[in-house]
Amino acid sequence: APPIEPRDLEAAARSVLPTEVYDYIATGSGAEETLAANLAAWRDLALAPRVLRDVGGVDVSTTVLGTPVSSPVQVAPTGYQRLVHPDGELGMATGAAHAGSLLALSTRATTTFEELADAAGPWWLQLYVLRDRDLTATVVERAAAAGARALVLTVDTPYVARKARATAFPPAEVSPVLVPELRARADEGVWQDPGVTFADLAWLAEVSGRLPLVVKGVVRGDDARACVDAGADAVWVSNHGGRQLDGAVPTARALAEVRSALPDEVEVYVDGGIRNGRDVVRALALGATAAFVGRPAVWALATGGAAGVGDLLVTMRADLEETLALCGCASLADVTPDLLRPAHPHR
Amino acid sequence: APPIEPRDLEAAARSVLPTEVYDYIATGSGAEETLAANLAAWRDLALAPRVLRDVGGVDVSTTVLGTPVSSPVQVAPTGYQRLVHPDGELGMATGAAHAGSLLALSTRATTTFEELADAAGPWWLQLYVLRDRDLTATVVERAAAAGARALVLTVDTPYVARKARATAFPPAEVSPVLVPELRARADEGVWQDPGVTFADLAWLAEVSGRLPLVVKGVVRGDDARACVDAGADAVWVSNHGGRQLDGAVPTARALAEVRSALPDEVEVYVDGGIRNGRDVVRALALGATAAFVGRPAVWALATGGAAGVGDLLVTMRADLEETLALCGCASLADVTPDLLRPAHPHR
Amino acid sequence: APPIEPRDLEAAARSVLPTEVYDYIATGSGAEETLAANLAAWRDLALAPRVLRDVGGVDVSTTVLGTPVSSPVQVAPTGYQRLVHPDGELGMATGAAHAGSLLALSTRATTTFEELADAAGPWWLQLYVLRDRDLTATVVERAAAAGARALVLTVDTPYVARKARATAFPPAEVSPVLVPELRARADEGVWQDPGVTFADLAWLAEVSGRLPLVVKGVVRGDDARACVDAGADAVWVSNHGGRQLDGAVPTARALAEVRSALPDEVEVYVDGGIRNGRDVVRALALGATAAFVGRPAVWALATGGAAGVGDLLVTMRADLEETLALCGCASLADVTPDLLRPAHPHR
Amino acid sequence: APPIEPRDLEAAARSVLPTEVYDYIATGSGAEETLAANLAAWRDLALAPRVLRDVGGVDVSTTVLGTPVSSPVQVAPTGYQRLVHPDGELGMATGAAHAGSLLALSTRATTTFEELADAAGPWWLQLYVLRDRDLTATVVERAAAAGARALVLTVDTPYVARKARATAFPPAEVSPVLVPELRARADEGVWQDPGVTFADLAWLAEVSGRLPLVVKGVVRGDDARACVDAGADAVWVSNHGGRQLDGAVPTARALAEVRSALPDEVEVYVDGGIRNGRDVVRALALGATAAFVGRPAVWALATGGAAGVGDLLVTMRADLEETLALCGCASLADVTPDLLRPAHPHR
Ligand SMILES: Cc1cc2nc3c(=O)[nH]c(=O)nc-3n(C[C@H](O)[C@H](O)[C@H](O)COP(=O)(O)O)c2cc1C
Ligand SMILES: Cc1cc2nc3c(=O)[nH]c(=O)nc-3n(C[C@H](O)[C@H](O)[C@H](O)COP(=O)(O)O)c2cc1C
Ligand SMILES: Cc1cc2nc3c(=O)[nH]c(=O)nc-3n(C[C@H](O)[C@H](O)[C@H](O)COP(=O)(O)O)c2cc1C
Ligand SMILES: Cc1cc2nc3c(=O)[nH]c(=O)nc-3n(C[C@H](O)[C@H](O)[C@H](O)COP(=O)(O)O)c2cc1C
Repeated sequence: APPIEPRDLEAAARSVLPTEVYDYIATGSGAEETLAANLAAWRDLALAPRVLRDVGGVDVSTTVLGTPVSSPVQVAPTGYQRLVHPDGELGMATGAAHAGSLLALSTRATTTFEELADAAGPWWLQLYVLRDRDLTATVVERAAAAGARALVLTVDTPYVARKARATAFPPAEVSPVLVPELRARADEGVWQDPGVTFADLAWLAEVSGRLPLVVKGVVRGDDARACVDAGADAVWVSNHGGRQLDGAVPTARALAEVRSALPDEVEVYVDGGIRNGRDVVRALALGATAAFVGRPAVWALATGGAAGVGDLLVTMRADLEETLALCGCASLADVTPDLLRPAHPHR
Repeated sequence: APPIEPRDLEAAARSVLPTEVYDYIATGSGAEETLAANLAAWRDLALAPRVLRDVGGVDVSTTVLGTPVSSPVQVAPTGYQRLVHPDGELGMATGAAHAGSLLALSTRATTTFEELADAAGPWWLQLYVLRDRDLTATVVERAAAAGARALVLTVDTPYVARKARATAFPPAEVSPVLVPELRARADEGVWQDPGVTFADLAWLAEVSGRLPLVVKGVVRGDDARACVDAGADAVWVSNHGGRQLDGAVPTARALAEVRSALPDEVEVYVDGGIRNGRDVVRALALGATAAFVGRPAVWALATGGAAGVGDLLVTMRADLEETLALCGCASLADVTPDLLRPAHPHR
Repeated sequence: APPIEPRDLEAAARSVLPTEVYDYIATGSGAEETLAANLAAWRDLALAPRVLRDVGGVDVSTTVLGTPVSSPVQVAPTGYQRLVHPDGELGMATGAAHAGSLLALSTRATTTFEELADAAGPWWLQLYVLRDRDLTATVVERAAAAGARALVLTVDTPYVARKARATAFPPAEVSPVLVPELRARADEGVWQDPGVTFADLAWLAEVSGRLPLVVKGVVRGDDARACVDAGADAVWVSNHGGRQLDGAVPTARALAEVRSALPDEVEVYVDGGIRNGRDVVRALALGATAAFVGRPAVWALATGGAAGVGDLLVTMRADLEETLALCGCASLADVTPDLLRPAHPHR
Repeated sequence: APPIEPRDLEAAARSVLPTEVYDYIATGSGAEETLAANLAAWRDLALAPRVLRDVGGVDVSTTVLGTPVSSPVQVAPTGYQRLVHPDGELGMATGAAHAGSLLALSTRATTTFEELADAAGPWWLQLYVLRDRDLTATVVERAAAAGARALVLTVDTPYVARKARATAFPPAEVSPVLVPELRARADEGVWQDPGVTFADLAWLAEVSGRLPLVVKGVVRGDDARACVDAGADAVWVSNHGGRQLDGAVPTARALAEVRSALPDEVEVYVDGGIRNGRDVVRALALGATAAFVGRPAVWALATGGAAGVGDLLVTMRADLEETLALCGCASLADVTPDLLRPAHPHR
């Protein structure tokens, strides 16, 4: 099979999806400043490869919060996956499992926990603290019971930002169905509590019990530190793929700030514009443990279902292996900050 | 009603206005370097949003020189508003009042003080020190009598600069009529005195009596300081929307210099390229108390009269509220300089 | 008469000139990197205008090496002016005189000293040190006799660089005729001595007697200093309008280095991409005494002969006056370095 | 003959070559970030020419590892030259010899050592450490016997990167034939050992006996130093013309780092985007002894065979001479770092 270039994937997905669905996935918020900046900021980091290192065998396997994965590339949570393919979240989970990657399941999933239980691989549940705290706790319990390995609290969405290319989409009838309790209260306004604070994070850390807690959507060092102080086990640098605050700093730049604000033992993840092995190496060199892909996984699901997702992840792993080898790195431990040079030097 | 994007507004206005009128409003001076730079410079400031703050209720109301306003977005003075809509300045005033914003009325208004008196909201009078000082004093008196809350002295226009896309426009018959005395002396050359200095500012501060005095068109810290020393109550950072000195520093950059040159208690305003809630947050983070819109308000007036102006301001307020919430700010007091990151870092 | 925009002038000239003539004038050398950079580098300097200064009367007259001129804008030497208009150098001289500007006459002039003697205004002779030193001295003597006010030694042309858009042009029959002795030896290879050094500059300073000596084509501080040490009276920052070393630093950037390397009393001039009053103010703020225009004067000559040249210079003076007024400067003495801000700040 | 502009050469070559061959040569790897950056990075270095130096005679001859060459421009190794012209490597060698330049012969040559022996000029052999060390030693012996002046170990290719515009090319039947032993084992996977380290470099330095050893593909100062410590005689800064690690730092920027990490007596070479005399001067000013051209030489071979290659090199030498003269440098020793200014200054 020919290699899957994420950029070709997007074109292929565009041709199979209804325009409004394509637009809903592709869009950013506002004037899409951050959407563009996310992609550009990785490119701004030039690589200074090492030579004459033994890269006969390159190992990109690692662990994420203790879970072994075949590579640092994981699948970010994206809602309403049945919009792009009948297999929906089940297909995404199967593909990720096949490739040995973690899946972060969106609370806005269009599949139930029960259906997903059969999908082999490890998964996390992305959630929000809902206005109804009991319902929040219910979701957490069900997730734990269904086998989630961690909870991911998304904190960059106190309100859902207006999208540049999608208004009033998805339609009301495409309602999340993860747990029956949510279905009855699909209206977004009801769901998410914009009043959530670090105190709620502490509450959630308690509710989640033995499940580790990841905070997703942090771009500041001080906030990252405060999350950990409030009980977070890891921090996920994200601006929601340029879909929330437009004008937000691109993640490639926020990552360094967040990483340096945290103790080494706290894992940091990143997403936003990660498209190939190079970008992953740049993320790792800036101190990330894993890099998540959002849209590329959706395009893969749209064009190839579960198999498409698996192919994407396997291809990205191969691309990462090649990139590591060309950087003179035999394993992820060799990927250190000195691999980077700023792209536009000023003497 | 669908949200009003200022960029869509301009296109709509273009389609309803005669070309020469559209060009006269859209144009900058010279090669329009500053016109373009004004827009770009806001984008150069990336935002670093805070998370996990209670943004259940976001309050963007504030006061400007003591006048309560529903948001920091106000209407900048633009001349000859009847050119774009029969309601002219009256429509602009009505729309601003409806939205709870301040209006700065241009001396080149095509409506009389009397007509405007009925428009409910608070307004300021923008003026020039005219060659005829008595006439200047007359205008000030009439404004005070008609209910102006402050005077805005525009100082970036000792001469009217040549426009890039408009020559010999507006035609002589479109004459300002704020007070009858001006009507008789419509020739621009007669009006504005290019010899005005800080001494005249001191004179005006006296003449204006209890009316506070704002100086508009300042882009330097030393000048800002000198204005306050000469009696100004507030400073308005502006380059006249790129219509006066082309090549002038964009206001997004001048703002920081001006702000840091003044004591905290002196209010600073800014205009030039402000187009959405993001830009307003950037301006506030740099220390502005209010941000004024020029062209967007004219486009709104052209396409929808008073209602259009109201819609624009209400929409911008909503956009600002959303932006604040996404920045983790519940009120304007939370908007501090640490929300900003330079867009193009160099390590 | 409508204002002459140099950019419109170029289009007009293009439409009246044969393609090969237009190309010969418009072209730069190499890949035209410096041609483009010259224009862009002025734009990179943003202006921070002053306000509330009395600019009721703006005086842009000045002196250049003691010669009074009506503005700091002068005419740079360009060869073969009869190629673009039958009046050739005579037309250029007449136009410059009419506007009160200095003309620098090229050694490659297609008019004789005798013909030019009648043109009223002050002029300098641009020359090269030729292989034949006696012939060089002859040219100097004739120039002095014909009324030249200074000599301009061009030092950036030890060889004539290959042009990007002009090869083998001008044709041999278009031969310089300033003095009959040159006519007989038109082959460029014969003319210019690539072995000229600071010692020859000292020799020329002696030969030129009471005529001041300007060195044109300097972009380095150390060289500028060495020129003055060797007897130069003034230094002209130029890269030959991007027609000699391609890749050379743009003059807007070289100017600061040169200015700061010289004592204040040594005048510094600049050319290259000067197109309007803004650019002139930028040059003056960086310490230049005068700014020269090359191509714009040729376009003006091509389209309007002597009158065209006069119109261009009068228009540029008016534009400069407007710009000065808008900068809050009543005279050239007010144009100081603090008027500038870098266009792309990095905090 | 009209001057050969490398950029015109590429267009000419494109028109004579089959698309797949053109693409194979023109392509970079990945998203071709480095391919583009290589070209742009030279331009980012502005030149500050000296004036009034005697450049009546400009001498660009030099020596490379003791071998006299007519200019610092040499030919980089490129595989499969018979793909573009029937003369293949023989033509390239003849052209280089004619112009007095060194040729670096690729291990992937489509000509035998025997055929090449007759080509007069000095040449180096570029090689890889193969999985089969004995075969590696055999190649080295044959090269020494056939007259190679140095060995060039390419170290940026532990694996062959995927190309952006060429997949599965060249076809299997276009097999390297330098020595018969290689022919039988044409599969790339068999050839290159991705496990090569500094220890192997030391081994090769021994095997190569009296032949000097150059390491090609270094972009880091620490690696350059380690190469010399392991026995390398010189270091060649290269990112394989943007065909290996995409995202790699452009060579114009890596050069300064490498140069400053090495003692002055160790020669440093550079390639990647060198297209004219300007680029060569920039490379020399950054401390390179020689600059190699890859694609331009292939385009020249494609369009003109041996004569085309000779013309290219002679033209580039002439362009370099002109550039040196315009920089006020009479010889390569005059090309020092102070000739450079960064293209985008920040104050
Ligand atoms: C269509 C779509 C839906 C998304 N839905 C969610 C979601 O439900 N929860 C969440 O935390 N993030 C969501 N995200 C954000 C992603 O998790 C991720 O942060 C982002 O897509 C990464 O950027 P990328 O698309 O450039 O890889 C969504 C993104 C997209 C494109
Ligand atoms: C058509 C037009 C007319 C204007 N007339 C005036 C005026 O009479 N007095 C004044 O102080 N500023 C005037 N301005 C400048 C505005 O007050 C304001 O500084 C500028 O428009 C802000 O930039 P923006 O248009 O990008 O928002 C005018 C601007 C425009 C576009
Ligand atoms: C067509 C042409 C001919 C020129 N001939 C001469 C010349 O004979 N001597 C000289 O010193 N400079 C010559 N120059 C350079 C100009 O004096 C001046 O440095 C340059 O044109 C300034 O740049 P600008 O054209 O962007 O204003 C010539 C320039 C042009 C465009
Ligand atoms: C078609 C092609 C084949 C190449 N083959 C080899 C090779 O066999 N060995 C090697 O060390 N470099 C090889 N290179 C890289 C060149 O030696 C050189 O590093 C690069 O082409 C320089 O960049 P430039 O093409 O921009 O001048 C090749 C380059 C090209 C374009």
